[in-house]
Amino acid sequence: MPSYQAPLRDIAFVAHELLDLGSHYQQLAGCEALDPATFDAIVEEGAKFAAEQLAPLNAIGDQHGCRWQDGRVSTPPGFAAAFRQFAANGWLGLDKDPQYGGQGLPPSLGFVIHELLCSANHAFSQFPNLTGGATSTISEHADEALRQRFLPALIEGRWSGTMCLTEPHCGSDLGLLRTRAEPQADGSYRISGSKMFISAGEHDLTENIVHLVLARIDGAPAGVKGISLFVVPKIRVEADGSLGAANGVSCGSIEEKMGLHGNPTCVLNFDDACGYLLGEAHRGLNAMFTFINESRLAVAQQAQAHAETAFQGALAYARERLQMRATPRLRPELPADPIIGHADVRRMLLTQKAYAEGGRMLTYACAQQVDRLHHAVTPAARAAAARRLALLTPIAKGILSEAGNEAAQLGIQVFGGHGFIREWGMEQIARDVRITSIYEGTNTIQGLDLLTRKVFADGGEALAELLAEIEDFTRTAAAPAELVRPLLEQVNAWREVSAWLHERSGSDANLVGASAFDYLMLAGYTLLGYLWLRAACQAEQALANGSGEADFYQGKRETARFYLQRLLPRAALHRTLIESGSANLMSIADSAFAR
Amino acid sequence: MPSYQAPLRDIAFVAHELLDLGSHYQQLAGCEALDPATFDAIVEEGAKFAAEQLAPLNAIGDQHGCRWQDGRVSTPPGFAAAFRQFAANGWLGLDKDPQYGGQGLPPSLGFVIHELLCSANHAFSQFPNLTGGATSTISEHADEALRQRFLPALIEGRWSGTMCLTEPHCGSDLGLLRTRAEPQADGSYRISGSKMFISAGEHDLTENIVHLVLARIDGAPAGVKGISLFVVPKIRVEADGSLGAANGVSCGSIEEKMGLHGNPTCVLNFDDACGYLLGEAHRGLNAMFTFINESRLAVAQQAQAHAETAFQGALAYARERLQMRATPRLRPELPADPIIGHADVRRMLLTQKAYAEGGRMLTYACAQQVDRLHHAVTPAARAAAARRLALLTPIAKGILSEAGNEAAQLGIQVFGGHGFIREWGMEQIARDVRITSIYEGTNTIQGLDLLTRKVFADGGEALAELLAEIEDFTRTAAAPAELVRPLLEQVNAWREVSAWLHERSGSDANLVGASAFDYLMLAGYTLLGYLWLRAACQAEQALANGSGEADFYQGKRETARFYLQRLLPRAALHRTLIESGSANLMSIADSAFAR
Repeated sequence: MPSYQAPLRDIAFVAHELLDLGSHYQQLAGCEALDPATFDAIVEEGAKFAAEQLAPLNAIGDQHGCRWQDGRVSTPPGFAAAFRQFAANGWLGLDKDPQYGGQGLPPSLGFVIHELLCSANHAFSQFPNLTGGATSTISEHADEALRQRFLPALIEGRWSGTMCLTEPHCGSDLGLLRTRAEPQADGSYRISGSKMFISAGEHDLTENIVHLVLARIDGAPAGVKGISLFVVPKIRVEADGSLGAANGVSCGSIEEKMGLHGNPTCVLNFDDACGYLLGEAHRGLNAMFTFINESRLAVAQQAQAHAETAFQGALAYARERLQMRATPRLRPELPADPIIGHADVRRMLLTQKAYAEGGRMLTYACAQQVDRLHHAVTPAARAAAARRLALLTPIAKGILSEAGNEAAQLGIQVFGGHGFIREWGMEQIARDVRITSIYEGTNTIQGLDLLTRKVFADGGEALAELLAEIEDFTRTAAAPAELVRPLLEQVNAWREVSAWLHERSGSDANLVGASAFDYLMLAGYTLLGYLWLRAACQAEQALANGSGEADFYQGKRETARFYLQRLLPRAALHRTLIESGSANLMSIADSAFAR
Repeated sequence: MPSYQAPLRDIAFVAHELLDLGSHYQQLAGCEALDPATFDAIVEEGAKFAAEQLAPLNAIGDQHGCRWQDGRVSTPPGFAAAFRQFAANGWLGLDKDPQYGGQGLPPSLGFVIHELLCSANHAFSQFPNLTGGATSTISEHADEALRQRFLPALIEGRWSGTMCLTEPHCGSDLGLLRTRAEPQADGSYRISGSKMFISAGEHDLTENIVHLVLARIDGAPAGVKGISLFVVPKIRVEADGSLGAANGVSCGSIEEKMGLHGNPTCVLNFDDACGYLLGEAHRGLNAMFTFINESRLAVAQQAQAHAETAFQGALAYARERLQMRATPRLRPELPADPIIGHADVRRMLLTQKAYAEGGRMLTYACAQQVDRLHHAVTPAARAAAARRLALLTPIAKGILSEAGNEAAQLGIQVFGGHGFIREWGMEQIARDVRITSIYEGTNTIQGLDLLTRKVFADGGEALAELLAEIEDFTRTAAAPAELVRPLLEQVNAWREVSAWLHERSGSDANLVGASAFDYLMLAGYTLLGYLWLRAACQAEQALANGSGEADFYQGKRETARFYLQRLLPRAALHRTLIESGSANLMSIADSAFAR
């Protein structure tokens, strides 16, 4: 079983050297006091909690799983106590509004902590993650009375939160949603319907659970424009925030899953449950997107966090396992060399390292935009952050969930036969990470979102800004031409293929769908390439300045080279596939698939 | 849970239309009597057994698993009875020597049956598969006395077989093997040592188990040239084939695995166990390669068989699941269209279909060479088959295990959230197929084998023959230029990159290792491209002849187009990666991986 070690040195590299978060915080309203030393101290505390309290529960959660009995769900041994400790330490309020008990620190700090939680125990991390998402959504869209009623207990961790979208007949297509909301004289609603795939929908961690539920008010328009969002507590909450009677919410069952056994995936039945409208009627999907977007970035982090643990596990094994001779020989005194000496094992380890560290750069860069979205001083700066974040979110979710899966599979592969065996922990990573390319919108959905709503919808403005930034950096980058050239070519390809798609999609209704996944990957590989080039320049400079950490910076520089020469070329393949058009997908008759 | 339907129409397409096995059998000694109608009748019987007897045990095997207690292993409910029925039906002797109870049918027929078993129940299929491998190895390398002693009961299915290579400290690197063999006065040996990862090493299906064990005779040379092969029964076997006392073989434990729970993976301890030398002393690895090569092709089939079931499951779901509108609308009367209408879902389904059917073409084409290896009339024809088969085996194992994994992951993806849920069966496929890129030599090992022993070792002769065959076909193929051109380009690329590697590998000791995996994939994608072009031509001809099965042949032709336009381009990416050289893998210091 691999023992998780928080990658504090690399976190510091990304936070301080690459993104200079210290200066960044100086420019944010209410965040000026967070200096790098305090930042590091908080991260170290989080790392300690993750490694000492959560990582030991990870395999237990997988093996024991959650149990459903008569509508009640028990979580694996240790989870409830760990959650109480987590809440008591104040982690749930880290970046939440001080008015309701939060500490008002910038969201990016919360992202760093979230990575640590996900690496240590993805299943556990879902409890605080969903609670945080519910908190944000209520903060942003509820009136003051609802905020007073629900936020303090969520931030304290006495209650947890969920996100209720999916119904048996509707996942990606929320327009088909059927759950009903019947207005009551007192301004509340009676919610009735059945939701499924509700993570942390029922459990024994908190005294109450606050469900954010999409439903249709009687008489609402059909489709997504008739959906409203409601706060529906498991146990009724009085106006003063105290607990009342049980509400009409019950957990019908939990799913048997491939992984993530430590977190219950619930069927929830709402039967005339009392709920409160959150935001405007019929604008519920809009409000829910606060939750959805936050969750999509959280999923990107979950996948990145799995890439990190898969890398840690595989690296440790590759240093220990002796098989065959390497060139040069590493341990001539032993009967064989550690497999880290073999080129193909290095290919796998470097892929994992490039994803784990590249994914960290990408998610923290997103987090920096989240900071600006909430704390930038000018409306223009907040709008710019919103635009960039909207563009980056599907890309980060798409590429990192694919990368996390690949890194996990490589973790198994480096271990050879032992990778297939439970006790080594690698196969659990592969099972747990699998859901990241599915939930919070499959990668098909992410690709469609990216192309239609993030690239085409604004006339390509947000994309043009990003590509200009990359080109500006790349043209003046203090890096060897062999690294700069492929990135510049790829940026150009991204621009060209976007225009090509925009031009043709009007006359080919299936072209966007046919290209969505490949476009998402092209964007993701290119974006990671940009970040790796920045990392390489940073490393080069540190080495030139005579850094005492030559190993760290050489590793960074060589991983950048690996990325740009061996992973970035995949972007060109995705362009080829996009340009192959939609006919090779659409020309086969539905009836001709089967035999 | 998907219900498995044997793809009899496609099997007939590959067997009769593509490979013309009927004429092929006419040219093999002792196989002339097998006409297409008899072939089909036997396949149908096998399909019935697989679908009716084995498929229903697949999920049971996964959920129940095998149990170890006090050295005894019990298999999942139903496995023992199914094996007895399987044996009673004579399936184990299908292509085995009539002199020992077999039916002497050509091996290719056995391959077709094996695909059906693997699709229905991979875990179960390992019992007959290993028994068959042990039978072949004893047939080929043992003296007549040993054959008489062991073959009849193996062919009857009263005993089963295993393959004992791996030890705790040696998997890929068999030179490190330590198990000892001490010669006895009666010509037998005392075997002592510990083996691990022994599939079907202990179970309750048969009255005896025949272990083929690699061990070192006292005083043998170090490394792989001092390894011998032994027949070591679990229960001693008298000269007349009757059972004697227990032998010194015990099962110390079984592994908890990611998948394949229905087949026990055993630690076997040999403690002065009585064994018999199989073949020449110190030439054991050579003899074991009969077993290993047969197993590598079996693994290729397991993976292909999983691609088939993942495709069947995803296709059925994609026809049923209604989400969003497709262009054109498929079911305007319903609130949404079946997701098979969406381009990105079609991309996933076509990938699965291309792998399942392409893999079938590749494995049966290998099987045809196995037929020739054993039954061709002239020594020259047998030698040509051996040469071709040696080249194809690592390619088939490598590309199909990767393809099987990808198809399984796509199966989950098409199902969305349901793919992650156990009851739908897709996640079991992904867990079961995972081992195929690891066991019987990881794909790193396959790539090294391909480059060094199959391409470089004979001066490129076997490869040149294959490429010439592909080019000959392609130049005259009655297919559109848009399909022919990419394949011809890729064949040329394969030749060029082989020469490039051969030229440079002398001066760069790590280049072969750095290229092994990518070269394996380049070869695999190109080979599948050749087979898909052949299929396209066959389909085009059938359509031109006015076939009444327009759907079948259109599906075939369009899947070929999909393959050549959307999967074959990956080969070019692998060339780019090969040509990026070894420096981007080797330049990072070992110490610079960690942080």
